[in-house]
Amino acid sequence: MLHVEVYGDGVKAIERGELIIYKRWVEKKPIKLGQMVELVSEDYVLGCGIWDRIGVRILSFEPCPSSIDDLIEENLMRAKKLRERVGYWNAYRLVHGDGDLFPGLVVDIYKDIAVLQSSSAAIDVLVDKIAAKVKKVTGVDTVVEKSVQRVRSKAGLRPRERTLIGSKKETVVEVDVEGIKYKVDVRGRKTGLYLDQRENRVLAQRISKNSSFLDLFSYTGGFGLNALHGGAKKVVFVDTDEQALKLLRENLKLNNIPENKVEIVKEDAWKYLRKTMKRRRSFDVVSVDPPALMDDLRNGYELYRSAYAGARAVGRNFLILSSCSRSMSRSLFLKAIYESLDEPYRVMEVRGSAPDHPTRVGIEDYLKTAFIGI
Amino acid sequence: MLHVEVYGDGVKAIERGELIIYKRWVEKKPIKLGQMVELVSEDYVLGCGIWDRIGVRILSFEPCPSSIDDLIEENLMRAKKLRERVGYWNAYRLVHGDGDLFPGLVVDIYKDIAVLQSSSAAIDVLVDKIAAKVKKVTGVDTVVEKSVQRVRSKAGLRPRERTLIGSKKETVVEVDVEGIKYKVDVRGRKTGLYLDQRENRVLAQRISKNSSFLDLFSYTGGFGLNALHGGAKKVVFVDTDEQALKLLRENLKLNNIPENKVEIVKEDAWKYLRKTMKRRRSFDVVSVDPPALMDDLRNGYELYRSAYAGARAVGRNFLILSSCSRSMSRSLFLKAIYESLDEPYRVMEVRGSAPDHPTRVGIEDYLKTAFIGI
Repeated sequence: MLHVEVYGDGVKAIERGELIIYKRWVEKKPIKLGQMVELVSEDYVLGCGIWDRIGVRILSFEPCPSSIDDLIEENLMRAKKLRERVGYWNAYRLVHGDGDLFPGLVVDIYKDIAVLQSSSAAIDVLVDKIAAKVKKVTGVDTVVEKSVQRVRSKAGLRPRERTLIGSKKETVVEVDVEGIKYKVDVRGRKTGLYLDQRENRVLAQRISKNSSFLDLFSYTGGFGLNALHGGAKKVVFVDTDEQALKLLRENLKLNNIPENKVEIVKEDAWKYLRKTMKRRRSFDVVSVDPPALMDDLRNGYELYRSAYAGARAVGRNFLILSSCSRSMSRSLFLKAIYESLDEPYRVMEVRGSAPDHPTRVGIEDYLKTAFIGI
Repeated sequence: MLHVEVYGDGVKAIERGELIIYKRWVEKKPIKLGQMVELVSEDYVLGCGIWDRIGVRILSFEPCPSSIDDLIEENLMRAKKLRERVGYWNAYRLVHGDGDLFPGLVVDIYKDIAVLQSSSAAIDVLVDKIAAKVKKVTGVDTVVEKSVQRVRSKAGLRPRERTLIGSKKETVVEVDVEGIKYKVDVRGRKTGLYLDQRENRVLAQRISKNSSFLDLFSYTGGFGLNALHGGAKKVVFVDTDEQALKLLRENLKLNNIPENKVEIVKEDAWKYLRKTMKRRRSFDVVSVDPPALMDDLRNGYELYRSAYAGARAVGRNFLILSSCSRSMSRSLFLKAIYESLDEPYRVMEVRGSAPDHPTRVGIEDYLKTAFIGI
């Protein structure tokens, strides 16, 4: 067991619950990337973590177990148990980085395939060990890595995309989320189902009975499919991504949705909104769930405002307005809504991401979804 | 129709979406308390409201309808429709003050009884008209007033408690909320079910399967009953209020809960926590839902911390931590949690009040509930 002494500010950082303990706070020793280290202060154990380029990433505030494999397995087991408690199965986020005391790692489960994302050099080194434990803990037969996030290049890490465990060529799986079937292509240009919106989509089911529903930035159809499941009479899906719309069409078939209930529009959402206003067409419920505009685009805040205002202009009864920009705080999100909405409106509820996307001290929830009654 | 000219800051206030337009902002005219007035600026209609001691309370941003009865009915109809959209029936908050563009008024529906609360002199004057419209819009047969909140004395209004419509002496009703039956005594020392926790209790159902569950500040049993409904093996209810515990016992019978699944403790929650720690007893899930400590007690913040820390000490898997103090912001609530919880913990979700408690610009949600995985 490698013990590393932590000094002054580092001790305070751990006591505050921070998960990154920088090199300048710890005793100098030769340590390999990804090696398990036990952090101590005057023989008192502060926690257990792995060595990374910047210092130690905390995975536990307990003494280290006997091996790094045990450390990984214990953390995955705890994460799995919490998902089980919430009743999640089949498709869920197993590990949500810092929120699950596993900084640098994200793991999504889609039926028998696990998709793993690393944003740390230490996790990169450990990825095979992690994959083996993910298989053991969840029972998946395939583990693929899809470490292609932009944050990797900032950290000097190359994109990596490969199969870690399993020989299946087919990476399209069919999953069931809250009674709705989806096809997921884990090798697609984008992957996954944006599981963070799971509970918000369930609320969308409830408010969509007999409604006409507009699903802007529909992607593969999460909100609109839930609306149909909840009894919507008609859903218009709008997205520009042909790949996503292709999967959407398959999802509609999978869920036996009659064609006359659906309209699919391959178009820019703002353009669609302008046209719809001009034609004076309106919808009972409108969902706006754009990509992270404020993280990606200079004028992101204004774009949100214009999308929300557009939704208000074409929405009759209910709006579901989302933002997944990390740089847009919850209060800024509400400001954008207040500035964009004509009277009268009522903010019925504001929610964040689903419980399989936990947060902790210092980590704000990136997803905000407001349910607005008109 | 009485038109009242609004000046400078008053116009800006309305444009910001504020619902109280002070006397100093409007033209001086003799106006009766509770009279309907249309607010104009240079012949442009800004909205419609009622005259109160402090000025005009906005009920609509449209021109006034032909009578105050129509104004009241239109607002109640809109409020009712939004609750219907969410699928609420049988027991729900019909009007949530400012959040429903009805400042000074709260209306709860419990099956065939409506309970109405006024915190404004203007609403006091209109209460009979409102009661009649509540009956018409919701179909209740009884409307009682229970205007006994402390804010009334601040506004120089006396407590009022009486039957406005209906001759029933019996004011105990049985309602169904999300599949659980409750007895509600609208004339009891406290009333109601704290409907604001409705959705949070549904999530409690989901995480309670096979668990031992501690319901601190149980009141008439909302969280614990949901836990039992979700398959909890055993629930311990703790409260000091004998009246509440009496209704709790009736609720347990109503829902056919076997006695061996339940333990009822009439005791102070902190005392119970201390004893439980001493005995090293623990629970799979712990819910802490105290009264508004920080609004009512000087040391409220510290009391929350001590309750949350206690819950952590006796909780094994999951904590459900609530605060309904208006003076405790969401960020202060999270701070209290971070300061109270030993590692490891994961904030799985933070929610507010149910959708029948809407907010708007300038009004923060008073209820905060955090779901913590351990």
